[in-house]
Amino acid sequence: MFLDLVKKRRSTRKYLSDPVPREMIEQCIEAATYAPTACNTQSWRFIVVEGDLKRELVEKSLGGFIVPNRFAVGAPVIVVIATDMNLVTHRIGGKLKGIDYHLIDAGIAGEHFVLQATELGLGTCWIGWFDKKAVKRLLGLPAGWDVPAMLTVGYPAEEQTEKSRKRIDEVVEFKGSEKQ
Amino acid sequence: MFLDLVKKRRSTRKYLSDPVPREMIEQCIEAATYAPTACNTQSWRFIVVEGDLKRELVEKSLGGFIVPNRFAVGAPVIVVIATDMNLVTHRIGGKLKGIDYHLIDAGIAGEHFVLQATELGLGTCWIGWFDKKAVKRLLGLPAGWDVPAMLTVGYPAEEQTEKSRKRIDEVVEFKGSEKQ
Repeated sequence: MFLDLVKKRRSTRKYLSDPVPREMIEQCIEAATYAPTACNTQSWRFIVVEGDLKRELVEKSLGGFIVPNRFAVGAPVIVVIATDMNLVTHRIGGKLKGIDYHLIDAGIAGEHFVLQATELGLGTCWIGWFDKKAVKRLLGLPAGWDVPAMLTVGYPAEEQTEKSRKRIDEVVEFKGSEKQ
Repeated sequence: MFLDLVKKRRSTRKYLSDPVPREMIEQCIEAATYAPTACNTQSWRFIVVEGDLKRELVEKSLGGFIVPNRFAVGAPVIVVIATDMNLVTHRIGGKLKGIDYHLIDAGIAGEHFVLQATELGLGTCWIGWFDKKAVKRLLGLPAGWDVPAMLTVGYPAEEQTEKSRKRIDEVVEFKGSEKQ
């Protein structure tokens, strides 16, 4: 049941040092490739960062004042979600009023990754707050690329409690039906 | 298997006129409430639009030059994903460098809705290209709210073929591991 899967997902901030098998990462990426994208651009790219480079990535993009996300150094894998904005602009820039739709696309595809990882027993955490320029420089991303988000990935070190959730009636409103 | 679910999902543009049971919509919303959000703001709201109001929504926000998405009028339900930006700014604006993270959050939560709908046998389609001001005006959304996207929902009228997908090796790059 899908509902069981989304209830099982946690934002994992403590990881075991055990490496994550590449086959698992690839299965998560495969799930992400089935995500819908604006005009089917599929403009996301996933850069899987491990080892010393991962430590450097955390140091350079999550260092300094950005303390809350330093936990990322304990994750065996960081997946950088990047977008080729040239492609987005070329394909849909003229049609869509803004070109921020790539952020929604990154959210959709990234969550496919996250939920597949959850099913495989892996923990993940979305990171949206980091030094984008530092990431682009370190990974040598071309000009015109954006880095919407990063994901930490690894085996969770502990059972996590669930965060408080809004009730359905707090977030939904039905309009225009006869049952109102 | 989650991979089966994401493979089953289609962007449905032809719908049966059969109404969608409210319980199904509520289950999709429930799945959405389990989506992670930046700083756990849960700032998304889901406005479920049906009947005459739905027709008016399509007319006013997808009319005119925006022809490709007129298919939406054939969907029995349109779910408008809205974000209370005041909440986002208040909670994370000072910490995050941009406040566009709400678009990623909308992508994540919306895709929870979409995948739950897929499991229930419903078709959906993301719509990112519409007149935001017209939507806000028609639905009476407060100032400072954004409308990142809309979803059409209903029973699919026909079996749909799959769109072409990038291969995993076209979208992934492994960096910093010994296996390189």
